[in-house]
Amino acid sequence: MSLIDKLQWRSAIKKFDPAKKLTADQLDNLLSAVQLAPSSYGLQSYKVIVVRDAETKAKLRAAGYDQAQITDSSALFVFASVTNLDNDFGKKFIDLVASTRNVARETLQGYEQVVLGALNGRTKEQNIAWSHKQAYIALGVLLSAAADQGIDAGPMEGFDAEKFDEILGLKEKGLTASVIAAVGFRADDDRYSQMIKVRRPKEELFIHI
Amino acid sequence: MSLIDKLQWRSAIKKFDPAKKLTADQLDNLLSAVQLAPSSYGLQSYKVIVVRDAETKAKLRAAGYDQAQITDSSALFVFASVTNLDNDFGKKFIDLVASTRNVARETLQGYEQVVLGALNGRTKEQNIAWSHKQAYIALGVLLSAAADQGIDAGPMEGFDAEKFDEILGLKEKGLTASVIAAVGFRADDDRYSQMIKVRRPKEELFIHI
Repeated sequence: MSLIDKLQWRSAIKKFDPAKKLTADQLDNLLSAVQLAPSSYGLQSYKVIVVRDAETKAKLRAAGYDQAQITDSSALFVFASVTNLDNDFGKKFIDLVASTRNVARETLQGYEQVVLGALNGRTKEQNIAWSHKQAYIALGVLLSAAADQGIDAGPMEGFDAEKFDEILGLKEKGLTASVIAAVGFRADDDRYSQMIKVRRPKEELFIHI
Repeated sequence: MSLIDKLQWRSAIKKFDPAKKLTADQLDNLLSAVQLAPSSYGLQSYKVIVVRDAETKAKLRAAGYDQAQITDSSALFVFASVTNLDNDFGKKFIDLVASTRNVARETLQGYEQVVLGALNGRTKEQNIAWSHKQAYIALGVLLSAAADQGIDAGPMEGFDAEKFDEILGLKEKGLTASVIAAVGFRADDDRYSQMIKVRRPKEELFIHI
């Protein structure tokens, strides 16, 4: 099955089978995909909270319009943007580049200027909005990688971000929730995945120049 | 090679080989992946302009900080959000759902209320910002699908969106540029793809609860 076939197979699952759990390998593969997701300058200005604790999931469900997939999925991925994208954040990233590539930090001054210039050229709110978009790239990669492995996932924007921040203690960690995805395995009677997938025809979606 | 290996292989290519072009099949596969990308409510509130015309690419390069990948890549994908996410847009989407699934439109009244409620509950600017984020999911899927096929891609935010809108006539089409990606094949001497990939360690990127 090609990735295209797998993307055709996937569906935003609403009803998960709570008895079916991700194996450690499956979860680790998904984490690897998210870790490898591209982001602007490679900054990865977000973290991902992987929630499997039943009690926490129950609280999040209450803050997520009582959507059952929050508790019934095997793991809830909460993408959360770093809120303080300041000089210190940028500099520590350049430290990581230097240590990963084993190069002298001075050789990265140009890169550092570009990164700090980008972060400082926006307001705090603009940086967070920009960072949320980076998290959506990672979400797209997660959904692709899950489909590739035959794992179900249902992305969700319908949740109270402030309450999520509170329940997960994100504010104290300098984070704020961006978008979430329930990950696991569909129940046999999930209704939506049995419907014909609706997509705009290529003639409408693409403009060729 | 697993998708993870392919994501490890991929890199935000800056130097493309202008002689290497996507085949019709390769391009169509990428379009299929983008077409299948998930979006909120399935709305796909964006279009993707696929630019292969040399003259247009040259103009876009001038509006993209003269980045060579805009002209040297085989195709430039310009994700562009619909600007007028109004009742009419929502209703036409429900028409598409009804015709695709061959169900009476009346059966979709609940779905329609949810979609229209979401679109009407936000300002025009908020809808566009939200729509840009949807385009980033599709970007993530494109980058995954390209890597899966051994095709190079370099996502870019560094361009003048207003000028892109002008050059591509997007305003008249009710669109505005979100994010772009150069797609094709790396030059043998692309410098960045030969460097060690920098990613935050899993212990830092993920929080397990």
